[in-house]
Amino acid sequence: MMDYSPLFASRTFFQTYRPSKEVPYDFQVADPDPSYFPTEHILEAAGKALSERGREVAVYPEPMGDEELRQVISERTKSLEDISVPIDQIIIISGSTQGLCLVADTFIEPGDTVITEQYTYPGTLRAFNRCSPKIVDISLDENGMDTEKLAETLEDLRKRKIQPKFIYTITNFQNPTGAVMSLKRRRNLLSLARDYNTPIFEDDVYGDLIYEGEPVPPIYSLAGGEGVIKLGSFSKIIGAGMRIGWLITPTPIIPKMLTIKADSGVNSFSMMVVAEYVRKHMHDRLEEMRGIYRAKRDAMLEALDDYLGDSTEWSHPRGGLFIWLKIPIKVDPDKLLSTALEKGVNYYPGPKFSPRNEGKEYLRLAYSNYGHEDIRKGVKLLAEAMNKTRT
Amino acid sequence: MMDYSPLFASRTFFQTYRPSKEVPYDFQVADPDPSYFPTEHILEAAGKALSERGREVAVYPEPMGDEELRQVISERTKSLEDISVPIDQIIIISGSTQGLCLVADTFIEPGDTVITEQYTYPGTLRAFNRCSPKIVDISLDENGMDTEKLAETLEDLRKRKIQPKFIYTITNFQNPTGAVMSLKRRRNLLSLARDYNTPIFEDDVYGDLIYEGEPVPPIYSLAGGEGVIKLGSFSKIIGAGMRIGWLITPTPIIPKMLTIKADSGVNSFSMMVVAEYVRKHMHDRLEEMRGIYRAKRDAMLEALDDYLGDSTEWSHPRGGLFIWLKIPIKVDPDKLLSTALEKGVNYYPGPKFSPRNEGKEYLRLAYSNYGHEDIRKGVKLLAEAMNKTRT
Repeated sequence: MMDYSPLFASRTFFQTYRPSKEVPYDFQVADPDPSYFPTEHILEAAGKALSERGREVAVYPEPMGDEELRQVISERTKSLEDISVPIDQIIIISGSTQGLCLVADTFIEPGDTVITEQYTYPGTLRAFNRCSPKIVDISLDENGMDTEKLAETLEDLRKRKIQPKFIYTITNFQNPTGAVMSLKRRRNLLSLARDYNTPIFEDDVYGDLIYEGEPVPPIYSLAGGEGVIKLGSFSKIIGAGMRIGWLITPTPIIPKMLTIKADSGVNSFSMMVVAEYVRKHMHDRLEEMRGIYRAKRDAMLEALDDYLGDSTEWSHPRGGLFIWLKIPIKVDPDKLLSTALEKGVNYYPGPKFSPRNEGKEYLRLAYSNYGHEDIRKGVKLLAEAMNKTRT
Repeated sequence: MMDYSPLFASRTFFQTYRPSKEVPYDFQVADPDPSYFPTEHILEAAGKALSERGREVAVYPEPMGDEELRQVISERTKSLEDISVPIDQIIIISGSTQGLCLVADTFIEPGDTVITEQYTYPGTLRAFNRCSPKIVDISLDENGMDTEKLAETLEDLRKRKIQPKFIYTITNFQNPTGAVMSLKRRRNLLSLARDYNTPIFEDDVYGDLIYEGEPVPPIYSLAGGEGVIKLGSFSKIIGAGMRIGWLITPTPIIPKMLTIKADSGVNSFSMMVVAEYVRKHMHDRLEEMRGIYRAKRDAMLEALDDYLGDSTEWSHPRGGLFIWLKIPIKVDPDKLLSTALEKGVNYYPGPKFSPRNEGKEYLRLAYSNYGHEDIRKGVKLLAEAMNKTRT
């Protein structure tokens, strides 16, 4: 028998792959609700794309991605975010995850420092950890990353002659906290980034899912594109299985990214179908999905009110897909998870979002892929699990 | 202006991205011929897949890939290669390139040694170089990797207390030389790999494209799967833009690969369409594509005979997509490329395939994406370029 264990690279040890347990109410991952997948329109788009451009699927895709899709994304970005981006600054990626990996691979050497929020998307930590960085995290509140703390951290790093490679932030409906970074803090962050010659990596995959209030201008637009890489995705709007996202990137970074983007191109079949679909249906679809997700959020907030009452507190996000909940003081977080699983509910515990594995007192609930009744039932079971594990 | 240059990771420097010059006869990349893309059948498969399973595209794909497609690949592997593989040893990937990156990421730390053939696929070098290995290359001839040289190298490495992480070989219609590794050498390679506790990474993306003779059993089947990772792809058979390939992997490696496979899953839309298409059309399609590529190979061999006569030599592959040509002694390789480009022909020069940047005296021609007349015209121009640069 061959012994593989001495052969594995150390980067495979930062985490161990474990399939997650199947339960009736799985609030772990923000999978879009399959009931609303636009099968008919995608099929129509596939028909049009294949009959007009099918031959292009035979060959290897363009390194930057399908030109027509980049055009569609440029138009989308102008219309939704009031940002003008030439298509040669748009790189198509296989979902936002590839964007996280690409930016990590472009900048991070083992031991390099990058900056994130105190709690952040686990996929981001996974993508960054492939490159063995030191992650310095900055506390955040309902207005996003605390830029005073960031200023102190940057100054401290400078004194220690450490150049952070970039500052990563999820600006809108932050994962997991739901925070929206205020305009003031966006301006502060930009000003600090410039002072310390550090690029900003602005992850804005939830910005489209705004349920109330006015959108805050993206850092990318405040910066006029200088020093900011912006990440977007169609996963939540169309479907995660289409695997299409995009990076908007300053020009000098592009040849480096294309050097490291060793994928032989993004799926052209998917790119051309998405281009066709988005051109025709984007605005209606956005309205539809905002309505659907808003109602799901309301259902979960209402269930939390009904079943947890004032025993603890949780976020009330104005968009996005997550509720961040503080576990009541007398409830043991470890026992809570195992009890919840026994009852058929799952969620991600706080430490999954922390670069330091902290935050046991929190958990995140994703409400996107269940109907209102199931959301209620799941929250009820979670409340029961809390009562059962209360000391 | 932000200065990005001090921020880039060193892995972005092993190569510089340069878009290739557009010329009328581009024999660089083995793009499948767009004229034969099965648009109708793919559209039919998309219709069936979306109407039956469209809802699945909404959510994140399974980490190992679509179960139905893995079943189809298991059946294909049994029927074409007489190998029985359970679906839980098959990982779907976004084309063979992702497989190259995954295996590299799973095993290679900076400075680790891996073994390849003397000339190999540039995409492999690129995928491996992302991880900064030392690549030790072994000479090859028309019977594949020289296993006597391999034995010497392995012994030498052992004396120096260096454990190579794996031995990478393209067993069938090797890229770029067209070599097929003989059964004897496959057995020798396997025996050596076992003696030195070193896995074999068997890249078999061209094995389906056999034009004459009998197939040689895959190393994977000689090994009963022990210590061998096997790579396959539908890119050349269906279309490179579908981005679907697979890895067949010993069980102990799978959790490591899934830890490092930070892509949030392969495109489900593409996976389900390919599953549907392959189940229905694979055997006819294979026959069709073998006939088409065989005729293209014949057209190029005939053109080389006609225009280059006995001024030099080149490979006569029994399958695959490439001809490996020795540049005549009196022709300056650098001048040849620039003259060929002026005349409208492009190809990959030998050093692109060498881990040591050697092989200036060779070039590779890909014949897959032009019609017979264009292949003739391109070769004629290449011959003219040779005559022009002959000293």
